[in-house]
Amino acid sequence: MKLYDLSPEINEEMAVYRDKPENKPRVRVVATIKKGGIANESRFDLYAHTGSHVDAPLHFLDDGVAIDRLGLDRFMGKAVVLDFTKVKNAITKNILRNSKIKIQKNDIVLLKTRNNPIKTYDYKFVFLEKSGAKYLASKKVKAVGLDSLSIERDQHDYSTHKILLKNNMPIFEGLDLSKVKQGNYLFYGFPLKIKAEGSPVRAVLVKE
Amino acid sequence: MKLYDLSPEINEEMAVYRDKPENKPRVRVVATIKKGGIANESRFDLYAHTGSHVDAPLHFLDDGVAIDRLGLDRFMGKAVVLDFTKVKNAITKNILRNSKIKIQKNDIVLLKTRNNPIKTYDYKFVFLEKSGAKYLASKKVKAVGLDSLSIERDQHDYSTHKILLKNNMPIFEGLDLSKVKQGNYLFYGFPLKIKAEGSPVRAVLVKE
Repeated sequence: MKLYDLSPEINEEMAVYRDKPENKPRVRVVATIKKGGIANESRFDLYAHTGSHVDAPLHFLDDGVAIDRLGLDRFMGKAVVLDFTKVKNAITKNILRNSKIKIQKNDIVLLKTRNNPIKTYDYKFVFLEKSGAKYLASKKVKAVGLDSLSIERDQHDYSTHKILLKNNMPIFEGLDLSKVKQGNYLFYGFPLKIKAEGSPVRAVLVKE
Repeated sequence: MKLYDLSPEINEEMAVYRDKPENKPRVRVVATIKKGGIANESRFDLYAHTGSHVDAPLHFLDDGVAIDRLGLDRFMGKAVVLDFTKVKNAITKNILRNSKIKIQKNDIVLLKTRNNPIKTYDYKFVFLEKSGAKYLASKKVKAVGLDSLSIERDQHDYSTHKILLKNNMPIFEGLDLSKVKQGNYLFYGFPLKIKAEGSPVRAVLVKE
């Protein structure tokens, strides 16, 4: 069994969505043994969409459920990593259709692109086009993930997010897929249990 | 396959260690669709030891590693839930030795006690006594977890934490084991990847 860590380290220097300072994590040490505390203790102030994270329907749909209301089985299971590192702009229905590995119902579909690994925020990241989102929804996959900090750009109505989230498919963003080859795996990426539109996750792939 | 969610919801009303206000989580909505935002967005300000969480060696040992330096395999694998709900005060070596299910090397050992579920902070929670910690270390278990917000009380030198952490055994605290019976399972409880002495986790048991 081999484990792959898909999460970048959370720290104040990491890339954040649209480079906005208000999206940065803040890590604070609140007690230390050196200064007489009984233990070392910290607090973390995290944007819900920090590093590797998951979006819930509520992120883009006011009548959508929060991340604590999706079944745990949505965040684990059979996964397929598709290598689209040669795609320059967007992943479309046709590109997905022509992938060498077949996408199955209930797969967690992970899109590996040239975005990966994310060191700085790239405004022209490779994204999942609306046609691709519709295709994945029609295939009844369980969840979709990729290696950029958002799953779409330059679609004025945020249709990729909305198509997936209307189908209660969690969207994993900010995954580091650079060490993982195209193929089949098991995925684990459980959110914190919190009534909110998303959560940071520690995302892990297992090759048995 | 049956999944058990071991995590209480993170919210501002939840029980926190020693009832201290500075240990409370703070959940802030920072953008809403209703007020003209493109999405609903939140930030979470979390004590590292909020709800179901894991302690790293650095929590009690200045030369111990942070949670991001422990191998991912420490946070998943074969688990044994031991029912000690009849124990009134402390789990000792003798109590562990006499448990009906044998503790094996590399098990993640989960101690179910009368603490469970945690609604308010109980200053007289059932804890793992030093002798029990030594016993589990000698058995070379992978990790230890339980249902109180700390694994020990009233031991002036914090020896239970130190014995386990010196052996690089993660300590899971604040687990809700109320729905789980004594027996063998698979456990998943990955921390956020952050250079700190601990992390909140979403903890899950699987019965196959």
